[in-house]
Parts: sequence; structure tokens; C-alpha cells
Amino acid sequence: MMLLKDILKNKGGQPVTVPPTATVADAIRAMNDCKVGSVMIPNADGSPAGIFTERDVLNLCAEGRTDFGKMSIRPCMTCDIIAGKLEDKVSDVLAIMTAKRFRHMPVVENGKVVGVVSIGDLVKAKLEETAVEAQNLREYITS
Amino acid sequence: MMLLKDILKNKGGQPVTVPPTATVADAIRAMNDCKVGSVMIPNADGSPAGIFTERDVLNLCAEGRTDFGKMSIRPCMTCDIIAGKLEDKVSDVLAIMTAKRFRHMPVVENGKVVGVVSIGDLVKAKLEETAVEAQNLREYITS
Repeated sequence: MMLLKDILKNKGGQPVTVPPTATVADAIRAMNDCKVGSVMIPNADGSPAGIFTERDVLNLCAEGRTDFGKMSIRPCMTCDIIAGKLEDKVSDVLAIMTAKRFRHMPVVENGKVVGVVSIGDLVKAKLEETAVEAQNLREYITS
Repeated sequence: MMLLKDILKNKGGQPVTVPPTATVADAIRAMNDCKVGSVMIPNADGSPAGIFTERDVLNLCAEGRTDFGKMSIRPCMTCDIIAGKLEDKVSDVLAIMTAKRFRHMPVVENGKVVGVVSIGDLVKAKLEETAVEAQNLREYITS
């Protein structure tokens, strides 16, 4: 059974972050540079202050608010975060993501953000797990 | 085994579209109004001309190009589309999406776009299918 910690181990690296003092332009640049759809905003102690995603960018653009260099990230980020734990099961997290309709979940350990998993990361892992299971079943049946 | 046509049947409705004469502002408004992350741009005959997603909005913003009302959708949309068919298996489409790193796939029948499926739609369907299978197995074992 695959857990979030397995995903983060395979994915490697640190989550993409900007500080709470950043502008929306900083957040957009960070997402674009790292080719990701979300950026975490951690507090000084590493706890999650908020998350900002490409959906938030879309919403701002739809409101005609595009002066990103002058906009603080604080009022634009989502603070009501649903976070996961290292021991959470991939299938449980996928169920939460599809029910609540979001695609990026921060993973928190000891109160600190240690990574972010996307729905794409989780689906990829599930497909690999299913392929291994099917292979094992085939070997079992033919042995 | 679940197919794309099952997803579209459950999802209902028509895909969100704007014409090739639309501006980027029109596309952003359509996505925001319908709470979706992509919009299809069909030709007059219904064939897919392009797709435009919230990732494209992010890229434009990162380049400082935010004069959306004056920007034609044509040069900003992705024309090199990977489309699915009604009879495609959900698990095959998920594998393509995660390998190629995209999250919206138009479904084409007789050369016309008949719908768009998102990675979220597909994961939701797979989870429901797996739950039904598990229930059937439990009933089989306890009977």
C-alpha cells in the first residue's frame, strides 16, 4: 500500500515556496520557473501559512486584477489548507482531492511543510502500483 | 472496464468552448464562469482547433503579458492536441496524461469534439469502479 512518504521520496527535492512577504508576481515566477501549478507559503517556523495555485491566478485575471508586482501574496493565497501526513494512503488522498476538487496537497510533519503532492504524482504512483500487482498475479497464476 | 464515454455520460453537458475569433479575456471568463481549468477552441465544423488551459494563463502572466482583452486566442492556444475516443479506457488515458503531464483531454468522435475529461474526472471514476469491485469481492468471499 503506497503512502505519501513514498511519493515524496520518489519525487525528491523541496516544495516550491515563497515567503509571506512575497508578491503575487514572485509566486507566479516561482511556479513558472519550476513548472508546477502551486506554491506553498510557509511561516518563519516552517508551518503552512497558505497555498497559491494556478487556479488563483486564473481567478485574479478574470477579475481584471493583473498588477501582480504590487499585490501581496497574503490576501490572495488560500489559508484554509487541507494537509496530508507522511503515513497517509495514496488512495485516501486521491479520494479527498476528487471530493473536494483540489489538485495539490501539502504534506506536513511535526507542524512543518515537508513536501507537496499533486494529483498527477498520485495517479502515476497508483498506476505503477497496479502494474506491479498485476505482474505478481500473473506470475502467481502461471507458477 | 470504464471508458471515456461513461465519464462523459456521468458528467453531462457540453464542453466549455470559445470560437477561434475569441480573445484570451473571453477564454479566461469562460473558464472562470464554468469553474473549469480548460476551454476548447473548435473550428466551424466542430473539429478541435486548439485547447487553452490555466497553465497557459500562468505562462502568459509570467511573461508579463496581461493585456488579455487585446490578445487573440489563436497564438496562445495549444494546437498540438492529444485527443481521446469514446471507447478509450480510463486507465489508458490516465497513463497518457501522467506520462505527458497534461490534465485535460478532448474527446473526439467523427472529427468533432464531444467533450473534455479532466484528470479529476478520471480519478473519481476509477475510485468508484475500484470500490464496486472491492464490494463484489467481499460479497463473493462471504457468500
